[in-house]
Amino acid sequence: MTPSATSTFFAETKSGEKYATPHPLDELTSAEHHAAVAAIKAVWPSAWFKFVQRKEPVKAILAPWLDAFRNGKTQTPVPLPPRKAELGFVIPRTTEIHTCDYNFSTGAIENHDLAASGAKPPLDIKTLELYEQMILVTAEVSDALQQLGLARDTPIRADPWIYGADVEEDEPSYMQFLLYLQPPAAKGDPDSFHYAYPLPFVPVFSLATEQILRIDWVFTGDDVDGMKHTWKDKFDISHYRDNEYMTHLQKDYKPRLDLRPLLITQPEGPSFAVQGRQVEWQKWQFRISWNAREGLVLHDVCYDGRTTFYRLSVSEMTVPYGDPRPPSHRKQAFDLGDAGAGVTANSLDLGCDCLGHVHYFDGDIALPDGEILRQKNVVCLHEQDMGIGMKHTNYRTNNPFVTRSRQLVLQTIITVANYGECASFICVLYPEN
Amino acid sequence: MTPSATSTFFAETKSGEKYATPHPLDELTSAEHHAAVAAIKAVWPSAWFKFVQRKEPVKAILAPWLDAFRNGKTQTPVPLPPRKAELGFVIPRTTEIHTCDYNFSTGAIENHDLAASGAKPPLDIKTLELYEQMILVTAEVSDALQQLGLARDTPIRADPWIYGADVEEDEPSYMQFLLYLQPPAAKGDPDSFHYAYPLPFVPVFSLATEQILRIDWVFTGDDVDGMKHTWKDKFDISHYRDNEYMTHLQKDYKPRLDLRPLLITQPEGPSFAVQGRQVEWQKWQFRISWNAREGLVLHDVCYDGRTTFYRLSVSEMTVPYGDPRPPSHRKQAFDLGDAGAGVTANSLDLGCDCLGHVHYFDGDIALPDGEILRQKNVVCLHEQDMGIGMKHTNYRTNNPFVTRSRQLVLQTIITVANYGECASFICVLYPEN
Repeated sequence: MTPSATSTFFAETKSGEKYATPHPLDELTSAEHHAAVAAIKAVWPSAWFKFVQRKEPVKAILAPWLDAFRNGKTQTPVPLPPRKAELGFVIPRTTEIHTCDYNFSTGAIENHDLAASGAKPPLDIKTLELYEQMILVTAEVSDALQQLGLARDTPIRADPWIYGADVEEDEPSYMQFLLYLQPPAAKGDPDSFHYAYPLPFVPVFSLATEQILRIDWVFTGDDVDGMKHTWKDKFDISHYRDNEYMTHLQKDYKPRLDLRPLLITQPEGPSFAVQGRQVEWQKWQFRISWNAREGLVLHDVCYDGRTTFYRLSVSEMTVPYGDPRPPSHRKQAFDLGDAGAGVTANSLDLGCDCLGHVHYFDGDIALPDGEILRQKNVVCLHEQDMGIGMKHTNYRTNNPFVTRSRQLVLQTIITVANYGECASFICVLYPEN
Repeated sequence: MTPSATSTFFAETKSGEKYATPHPLDELTSAEHHAAVAAIKAVWPSAWFKFVQRKEPVKAILAPWLDAFRNGKTQTPVPLPPRKAELGFVIPRTTEIHTCDYNFSTGAIENHDLAASGAKPPLDIKTLELYEQMILVTAEVSDALQQLGLARDTPIRADPWIYGADVEEDEPSYMQFLLYLQPPAAKGDPDSFHYAYPLPFVPVFSLATEQILRIDWVFTGDDVDGMKHTWKDKFDISHYRDNEYMTHLQKDYKPRLDLRPLLITQPEGPSFAVQGRQVEWQKWQFRISWNAREGLVLHDVCYDGRTTFYRLSVSEMTVPYGDPRPPSHRKQAFDLGDAGAGVTANSLDLGCDCLGHVHYFDGDIALPDGEILRQKNVVCLHEQDMGIGMKHTNYRTNNPFVTRSRQLVLQTIITVANYGECASFICVLYPEN
């Protein structure tokens, strides 16, 4: 479903001509996306895209436009800036990080900017896969495995982590890899849980040269000798234990058979209505959109015609691991800035992730080569029963009064590498009078 | 359903004789209840009962007994104290508050105690009704209405509130009544919402003499003249507004028609098993019981054979109203101690209060005259879907793994006079491995 195909509205030129146009909050159409990418590639043929998305008009202009639009003034020309794409890309094997806009009316590239020295681009899936494979076959990694008394070709996996800086001065873009043995019992099964088998060394990798700069050994001492490399000279994995979560890898897996089915059905359908990216439920009305960094964004959330939130999204989530000993001090993922909630979003499936009548939204993001990655079912919308809304029993008459509550849930789930738990962004809207 | 009828177990005397006996945590049987009440009435014929309930053996004895019982040692005599009832009662029109035990083995009244001077018994429904009717027809109240410029027989309602003490010394048992006009538009409908029509005077009533001691006028000044009786001389209800919640009393009531049905069904039944007061679900096992003060009590909560909680209940809930001006400083209800979660429990009805397969428990409490009040469906037990339990998507293989979570909910709802909101005690037990 191309958003613009179902949510076009009509604007009017000054001469009175009507024309269909996407809502200013609708994401880029496929044609728009490709036009913007082509314009960039014409100037920077090796551009490696991090994001290509509809540029949001500034609030000072868009907010009054949305008010007019909601009040039925769709036929009246309300001055909006020309529709634009905004793009971010890097030039591989350089430190260049570019951002710019593409103006669909003029075909011009605008606001071009080069990020300051020391800035880091977010990861992307292609880079992850490429660099992981690159790292695994380096002499530096084989040498380190040998130092641990392991075969040089021991099957391992590498999780890429970017980090800000390790020194007070600006550094070029470096990244680190956290390494793990493949669990021996799983015999190379790609779904085996390697996080139970950490390796105590961390290759540091330069994005500019695509070379390993050095190996950092991890301090593994305990309370008494915290700053010792206890594993470096005598690496012993005998205390490692398999911790598989995939059922086919669990030796003694027995499914729980003591839960009987609990079915949630909505025979007359849901109470919400969806038109493109526009959602209506009870007296609530809002739009959604999708981008690489934030994933789900709610726009122009109105209740009974009144504006409540102009824009709702999660802009960052970070987890400091808290081990001050280098190189572990660099373990602090910024899930949205380092990777992106859009980039790492799961496809949600009916019956597993949600019950009842579920409406799904797809989301487009840009692949590094500029192609579109259509992510199916990255946002789901459904209603949930929320128990008792209000109850009062009059003790004089023993007459009870009870109302039932329901909530509308918008959910997106991201998985950032080893984060076994998932982040659910649940927007809850209660019905009111 | 008499608890003991479905949850008897067999104990064994030293000589090897087996006999059926209630579980020590089962509530009194009807016969036990009446025997205990009769024994008290034989000594105190005018006893006005506040509670009559099974006395719980002390933890030091019961906990090891429960361990043995759970380990299948039901045939082995484990020394338990003789089964007893515990009773609380007052002698009307005196300050006497009695507590004692009744020993079913010996027929003896034990541990008889008279509460210290200044102690207050909890309210009971009969007293509430009686005193409310008594208050409404007093000359003191009619005089006060007249002082406000209202007819002496203006239809009003009186909510009884007990309070601790108003002075530093011990006081006899006094209580206060918060008075309200009956909403004029509702024309005497007993379900009308009188809390929108407060009256600014509070009769103070002696439980010993059943007489009004005095009328306290409520300070009703604003920020500027807080300590003024602004309403005393010129009482004006023109700013009072109807605030009816019962639909038949709402002038412009329109039901919400925009919510479509959401059905929760369990075609194969629930995943729990109930035997008398014993509940089993997944690896969880516990017992429930019911009493006048606490309402729902969970006992001996075990997970996979391991003890987790010996006893779970809510023992009090209090709301200080926070107006320091007398007599409003006395507005601090202790919902369980002043009234009781058992005494004020609602009867819960399928389809309104809970969805899915619901199991109900009844609860007995004593009426003031010693009869049994069988409260139908005061506790409900049901399962709820709890969304995603755990989800992980392996970014290398894109294979998702997802488990679903479910919770077991035990619910009881109380309504204490004007508390329009209800207190739900929800015990949540998650399934685990």
